[in-house]
Amino acid sequence: MAHDNDIFRWGVIGPGGIANRFAGALAAVPGARLAAVFARDAAKGEAYASQWQREGEAPARVTTTLPDLLSDPTIDAVYIATPHSNHGEYIRAALSAAKAVLCEKPLVTTQAEGRALVELARTQGVFLMEALWTRFLPAYDLAGRWLRDGAIGELRAMQSSFCFAANYDPLHRQWNPALAGGSLWDIGIYNLAVTRWVLQQMNGGVCPEPVAMDVQAKMAPTGVDAAVNVTLHFPGGVTSQFRCGFDAASVNAFEAIGSKAGLRFPLDFW
Amino acid sequence: MAHDNDIFRWGVIGPGGIANRFAGALAAVPGARLAAVFARDAAKGEAYASQWQREGEAPARVTTTLPDLLSDPTIDAVYIATPHSNHGEYIRAALSAAKAVLCEKPLVTTQAEGRALVELARTQGVFLMEALWTRFLPAYDLAGRWLRDGAIGELRAMQSSFCFAANYDPLHRQWNPALAGGSLWDIGIYNLAVTRWVLQQMNGGVCPEPVAMDVQAKMAPTGVDAAVNVTLHFPGGVTSQFRCGFDAASVNAFEAIGSKAGLRFPLDFW
Repeated sequence: MAHDNDIFRWGVIGPGGIANRFAGALAAVPGARLAAVFARDAAKGEAYASQWQREGEAPARVTTTLPDLLSDPTIDAVYIATPHSNHGEYIRAALSAAKAVLCEKPLVTTQAEGRALVELARTQGVFLMEALWTRFLPAYDLAGRWLRDGAIGELRAMQSSFCFAANYDPLHRQWNPALAGGSLWDIGIYNLAVTRWVLQQMNGGVCPEPVAMDVQAKMAPTGVDAAVNVTLHFPGGVTSQFRCGFDAASVNAFEAIGSKAGLRFPLDFW
Repeated sequence: MAHDNDIFRWGVIGPGGIANRFAGALAAVPGARLAAVFARDAAKGEAYASQWQREGEAPARVTTTLPDLLSDPTIDAVYIATPHSNHGEYIRAALSAAKAVLCEKPLVTTQAEGRALVELARTQGVFLMEALWTRFLPAYDLAGRWLRDGAIGELRAMQSSFCFAANYDPLHRQWNPALAGGSLWDIGIYNLAVTRWVLQQMNGGVCPEPVAMDVQAKMAPTGVDAAVNVTLHFPGGVTSQFRCGFDAASVNAFEAIGSKAGLRFPLDFW
């Protein structure tokens, strides 16, 4: 390979708002570098590359052609931060080019596509991960240890909310069905993720599937879910009640309710 | 009347654990006095009367006969703290004797009996109240003002939990169907009460009825509900999700989720 093996080189696909957060964090990671950017809009790609150029380093290379990014042997992994509707296409291309993939949540929007991509990653022997950051937060590390050590006793139930008030805009990613909009995919995925994570801590790393679900959605004029109320029923009578929505501003708490104690993330659990 | 009109004289029906809390609080109320106790067990009544006798005052008069208590012209009001299954009988007797009534929650366990007793109180011109203390807590006063002043914007949803871990005992009031046991009547009533209270604050004092309900119960061997998961659907898409149960220890938080903000009682909302 033509590059310094001590440096892990990232290619970014979709230099938007979240990719800015990614690049800002990357600057704090020793040995990691923002090396390339794929943007359909060259000017947007250039602005991103120059914004995140670090002193004494070359700016990220900008390309408007995906194969150009993926065929670059100096790129170790790609970070995908496009609207949800494009994730599958870009993941498939990156895995096929043997690039490791970190993709923003939700990875994809159907189980079938998710299974196919995981299978592709295995066939290719290439790393694929959904960028669910909560799994790596120190608070989750500590809470996970408590859960595994039996601090709450047996798990009985969970409750959570994740809502924020977003202005209705039919063209915006959040409200646009063509861009896989809707609150469940955008933020409810965190309610689902924390639910599954707690069950994993309590069940030796394995999350059982729900045996029943009660779901009610409040639909936006575009046909996507503006808010969703869910009760998931897991084996043993364990339930997870949550609400996600673009129509409200909650404190976004999470609680795991156990036979001995409750464990709460009091705000912004995600 | 044969007594000092400056003193408000209480008769207690059911001198158990909660009636001890009542008597302890009464001692802090100027002008109020524990004047009489009705207990089926005379020794229990005497122990209660002597425990709460205040220096320089006569002990409460103890009787094992309800009509004896209710025909006493010096008693201004009765406080009923028996198991739920007896509330209706004692309320009816007290109202019929023109005694004001403060009765522990739940007032009764059927809507029909509740309506009949409210009607009786109106006919008799006698005060009747369920002892739902949360309505009088300073935190509720403040939160109610915030809600009425629009601090959270439009109400979207509510979430709450009220669980504690109780040892299973088929004969205990909480688990005994003959004593109107079950978690919904014992503690879920607070989840329902806070739900209705918030809706009242947001709707000029009037709580709309739910248009739909999703309810799942976990039954104890005695046939009472050990835990209940509820989603109440109110007009306008407003929902209230809650869990109550004798099988868990939660932090018992409540949150009202609005279009502008969330309002949380972070623990022990009841």
